Amino acid sequence: MAKLAAPIARLIDEFSRLPGIGPKTASRLTFYLLKVPKEQALALAEAIKELREKTTYCEICFNITDESPCPICRDPERDQSTICVVEDPLDVLALERTGEYKGVYHVLHGAISPVEGIGPEDLRIQELLRRVKGKLIREVILATNPNLEGEATAMYIYQLLKPLGIKVTRLARGLPMGGDLEYADAITLARALEGRREM
Amino acid sequence: MAKLAAPIARLIDEFSRLPGIGPKTASRLTFYLLKVPKEQALALAEAIKELREKTTYCEICFNITDESPCPICRDPERDQSTICVVEDPLDVLALERTGEYKGVYHVLHGAISPVEGIGPEDLRIQELLRRVKGKLIREVILATNPNLEGEATAMYIYQLLKPLGIKVTRLARGLPMGGDLEYADAITLARALEGRREM
Repeated sequence: MAKLAAPIARLIDEFSRLPGIGPKTASRLTFYLLKVPKEQALALAEAIKELREKTTYCEICFNITDESPCPICRDPERDQSTICVVEDPLDVLALERTGEYKGVYHVLHGAISPVEGIGPEDLRIQELLRRVKGKLIREVILATNPNLEGEATAMYIYQLLKPLGIKVTRLARGLPMGGDLEYADAITLARALEGRREM
Repeated sequence: MAKLAAPIARLIDEFSRLPGIGPKTASRLTFYLLKVPKEQALALAEAIKELREKTTYCEICFNITDESPCPICRDPERDQSTICVVEDPLDVLALERTGEYKGVYHVLHGAISPVEGIGPEDLRIQELLRRVKGKLIREVILATNPNLEGEATAMYIYQLLKPLGIKVTRLARGLPMGGDLEYADAITLARALEGRREM
C-alpha cells in the first residue's frame, strides 16, 4: 500500500474527526480541495481560523457573537423582559427562523446529563440567575430540548426561579405539524392529549 | 430574523461550497467547530492550508505528492516498465488498496469530455508519450473509468501508443463481485459474456 503524501493524509484525518464525516467522505473532500482554485481552499482555511479567533460569547446571553453584547441583546426593539432559555446557539437560530419571538435569549451551552458528567455548574445557570435578579423580568421561557436531559435541566432551573416569583413557562409539547397521528409515539400522543385546548 | 455573526455566516458559506454538503450540514459543522477545543479547529484550518502549500505533482507520474518524484516512482521494488494510466489520484489509491499491482502509474487528471470542454491537450497525455518513448516499457494498462469519457480517453491513448509497438491493455469489464446477475445492466452483462473465460 503506497503511503499518501503527508499533507493529504493529515487533512483526511482532520476531516474524519468532524461529526457525520467518515473516511470516504473525508478523502473525497480532501481531493476536491486539491482540485479547486487555491483561493477557494485557502478561504475555507481562513474562515475556520476566523471562526475561532473573531467570535466570542455575548456577555449578557452567552450566545456566540462577533461583538458583545450581541445584536439581539442590543436591539431596542426586542423585549428585554422576556428571556427564552435554550441549550445551544443553533436553538436560537431555529427560534429566530420562526419570526414569532420578540424577546431575548439565554444560552446554557448544554443540558444537565449525569451520564456525560455534565452538572448544573457546567452550564450558564448562575449567569441566568444573576441576570434575572433585581430586574423586571416578565417571563422566562424554558426551551430546552424535549428529552430526558432537557426536561431535567428545565426542572432544575424552574426550582431556582420559582422562589423569585418569576413566571416560568415551557414550550408546548404535542403532535408535530405535518405529522400523522398513527405514527406518533405514545409519549408524544399522551402529551398532546394532556395539553389539548378548546377550539 | 437575527443575523448570524459574520465569521459564522462566512464559514457556513464556505462549507456549503464543498460537494455533498448542504446548508444544514454546513451549519452543523460550523457550530461543531465552535464547540471543540480551539486547537482542533486550528489544526483543520492549518491542514487545509498545507494541503495546497506543501503538495505538488510528481514530475514523472503527475500524482499528487509532497516530494517529487513521488514515493511510488522512487520505489526500486516497483516495476518501472509497467505503467497504469488513471484519471485521478483517487484511482491510484483504489488500485493500491488491492495490493495486487506492482507497477507504476500515470495520472491524466481527467478524461476527454467534449461536453465539459476537456480535450486531450488538457490532460497529461503528451507527458505520457514522452515518458514511454525510448524507454523499455513492457505494458501500459489503461485504467480510465468504464464510462463514455473513460472509454474515449483510452481509445485516444491506444491510437497514440500502438505505433510505438507497446503492449496496451485495458482493465477487464464484467460482473462486479458480490453482484447479482439479474440486476446487472445489459451493457455490463454483454461485456461479461464477451469476456468469458475457460475454467
